[in-house]
Amino acid sequence: MKTPVDIAVTGAAGQISYSLLFRLAAGEFLGDDQPINLHLLEITAAMPALEGVVMELNDCAYPLLNRIITTDDPKVAFDNIDYAFLVGARPRGKGMERKDLLQCNAEIFSVQGKALDEAANKNVKVLVTGNPANTNALIAMNNAPNLKPENFTAMTMLDHNRTINQLAEKSGVKATDVKNVMVWGNHSSTQYPDIHHAKIRGQDALSLVENDWFVNELIPTVQQRGAAIIKARGQSSAASAATAAIKQMRTWALGTAEGDWVSMAVPSDGSYGIEEGLIYSFPVTVSHGEISIVQGLDVNEFSLEKMRISEQELHEEKEAIKHLL
Amino acid sequence: MKTPVDIAVTGAAGQISYSLLFRLAAGEFLGDDQPINLHLLEITAAMPALEGVVMELNDCAYPLLNRIITTDDPKVAFDNIDYAFLVGARPRGKGMERKDLLQCNAEIFSVQGKALDEAANKNVKVLVTGNPANTNALIAMNNAPNLKPENFTAMTMLDHNRTINQLAEKSGVKATDVKNVMVWGNHSSTQYPDIHHAKIRGQDALSLVENDWFVNELIPTVQQRGAAIIKARGQSSAASAATAAIKQMRTWALGTAEGDWVSMAVPSDGSYGIEEGLIYSFPVTVSHGEISIVQGLDVNEFSLEKMRISEQELHEEKEAIKHLL
Repeated sequence: MKTPVDIAVTGAAGQISYSLLFRLAAGEFLGDDQPINLHLLEITAAMPALEGVVMELNDCAYPLLNRIITTDDPKVAFDNIDYAFLVGARPRGKGMERKDLLQCNAEIFSVQGKALDEAANKNVKVLVTGNPANTNALIAMNNAPNLKPENFTAMTMLDHNRTINQLAEKSGVKATDVKNVMVWGNHSSTQYPDIHHAKIRGQDALSLVENDWFVNELIPTVQQRGAAIIKARGQSSAASAATAAIKQMRTWALGTAEGDWVSMAVPSDGSYGIEEGLIYSFPVTVSHGEISIVQGLDVNEFSLEKMRISEQELHEEKEAIKHLL
Repeated sequence: MKTPVDIAVTGAAGQISYSLLFRLAAGEFLGDDQPINLHLLEITAAMPALEGVVMELNDCAYPLLNRIITTDDPKVAFDNIDYAFLVGARPRGKGMERKDLLQCNAEIFSVQGKALDEAANKNVKVLVTGNPANTNALIAMNNAPNLKPENFTAMTMLDHNRTINQLAEKSGVKATDVKNVMVWGNHSSTQYPDIHHAKIRGQDALSLVENDWFVNELIPTVQQRGAAIIKARGQSSAASAATAAIKQMRTWALGTAEGDWVSMAVPSDGSYGIEEGLIYSFPVTVSHGEISIVQGLDVNEFSLEKMRISEQELHEEKEAIKHLL
């Protein structure tokens, strides 16, 4: 049996984690020959509920689940970890302005960034799911000077998957027939799902669907999908977010498929003119754990404008929390 | 790619199904080379919520998820299915007597039994999770005269897993070090988790733990575990129930490990003196999809008495709903 890997999950008693933890323990992330230790972080008030989740995890008698640590101290949670799923975030309360939301999450992620810096393995892979995910990742990254910026990503894999699904449904094909979609920018309603380079069974997607459908249906549908799920389910996306989190982290660990890419929000290096240092979603490939932004794609005026709108939003978010960077 | 298998899940918009469906679609049940069609049944009032779950399933862009059917008609849901996870059941409402609960579930499972009889594949494997699971399975079985009794099981795998976990925790070993535990009887607080034949790393469990601990700690802890989870989490077990459902169905489809057995509630053939025709949990082995009750185990007076108590409860449940058999 391999040596266990150490995986931290924050917000561990929340809904997304409830969909995530059991699948990590079942081997869906790194395969059924890779034992894991789970480091579960929660706020103090949620520790009793977390105990219930741990009882259920234990009741599964998972062969791969080697050890569970529960704590309300980020330094304990992040001790020697290889992977961090930063799921927990403060949701928007009644009467809370967007600015207040940014602020209180910024404080959480500033603390967690420092704890990661101090306690985690130097090669830790950090995936931020908790919203506002891109800016939360930016704050954590900036508070971890001893880790590389490349250790940090935010999740746009859910948006990427949603784009694949919309295109597959529209074209009457399987999800596996759709390649090379991408999502640019912020994991928010300004994100830009882009199918200019997408292929459906090897053919250009935009030769198979109308441009009008792309602009007036696909883009707003993907941008507003989270709200549509809440309307239908009465609760926000949890299981599909967990699926995307596993897929993003698994892709980061094991690499992208030949000829395809995925979307991840990563530190911008100025590619495509996007402000350096923002955590921005790009099409990326991964090999041996190294993420590379796909270079040299033609980007037309329409796309550039959409990309800039999301960049501007991220820039403003950064300005709002710059005292914590 | 293999031909898709057809899997029905009832109560598809409920909490256990929310933990189950995404894992079926990810390949946790039959492996990552087996495509599936999901047939999702809900009551009419829950169809909008189910639509939200389907949106999320589609948003995962699962390679193995071939098709999703949603319906409030059991005959449509069970059309040509290979596997049925009967998860949905009426929970006990305020002021409802146990007898009323039995009664209204009996009606649900009588309708579903008839629909299975009419619509499902003759080799369908039916796993009842919805409580009272054993008696619900009995009713479904009796309403499906064209299916074999062996097509029906009720779930005691969760109790089996809980017994493994308690013994592993007590002994400071891994779940995988524990073999040959068993759970007899009803999936209720009369169940009898039995470690007389259990092995820990090949040694007799009862030579390693005190008999007093077994009688006064393990048995009541496993019997009352569901209530303990509700107390801790504020909600009943969902993810661990889904894990157990996958394990029971997977074991049924793919077989038990050499030298070990699992617990399943199956139609009694009179083994160990248990009334024929009741759906009673026994230690079983599975080979090529055929379930066999483990024969010839020594059962002492203590065990026999516990086994009889649970048998008596099942007998009484059967009496209460006999007009539907």
